[in-house]
Amino acid sequence: MSSSTCAEQRSPRRGFSLPDDCLFCQLYREGDHVASTDGFVAIHDINPRADVHLLVIPERHVPSFREIAEFPADEAKRMLEFVVETALAQGLEDYRVVVNVGEGGGQTIFHLHWHILGGRMRGLPA
Amino acid sequence: MSSSTCAEQRSPRRGFSLPDDCLFCQLYREGDHVASTDGFVAIHDINPRADVHLLVIPERHVPSFREIAEFPADEAKRMLEFVVETALAQGLEDYRVVVNVGEGGGQTIFHLHWHILGGRMRGLPA
Repeated sequence: MSSSTCAEQRSPRRGFSLPDDCLFCQLYREGDHVASTDGFVAIHDINPRADVHLLVIPERHVPSFREIAEFPADEAKRMLEFVVETALAQGLEDYRVVVNVGEGGGQTIFHLHWHILGGRMRGLPA
Repeated sequence: MSSSTCAEQRSPRRGFSLPDDCLFCQLYREGDHVASTDGFVAIHDINPRADVHLLVIPERHVPSFREIAEFPADEAKRMLEFVVETALAQGLEDYRVVVNVGEGGGQTIFHLHWHILGGRMRGLPA
């Protein structure tokens, strides 16, 4: 398995190149998914900051929330719905949804992702 | 001014009734907006938990993020874009976006809203 592959190779609908070494593009394809649907997966955060700490990762690679406009409207809506569905499927009625935007906002992987945090919190997600 | 009025009176497109006493429906109409666009406004949080702490409030009344599916796709996308535009217009390059879902998730006003937090944080938004 090469980390230099990325989603574009399996996504003929992509009309633009993607980073060669994006961890989340790789995890989209090959991660241990707790939930998935067309274009989106959810995984456990490897550094949990809450009793339940999930990440929702879209297949579409944009560096951050700042580029949210690159999502077609139906895909943006389905992403939001998938966050809701994933939380519910993991037994969370109440939870926090967090997106870190940029290094100063705590973002560490530059592929847009959504944190779902349920139960007791242990600091801010990174 | 009566707090028993709500957005429905100025929104003929609504096909359903709204809570009579929703603070955020009222603030959508009459608040001190730092930014606004069709269907969305931004205000300062009255209990800021960061150097810059804004709330994005949609005109459409849904109790929480759990009901996000009630937004038409184009409106959901525009809401996300308005969060990005508002942060940028307020001088934030890097920031956190937080949605508290349900009482156990820190939600205190049951009208969906998005927190934008920039600069130093002082705890979790409520």
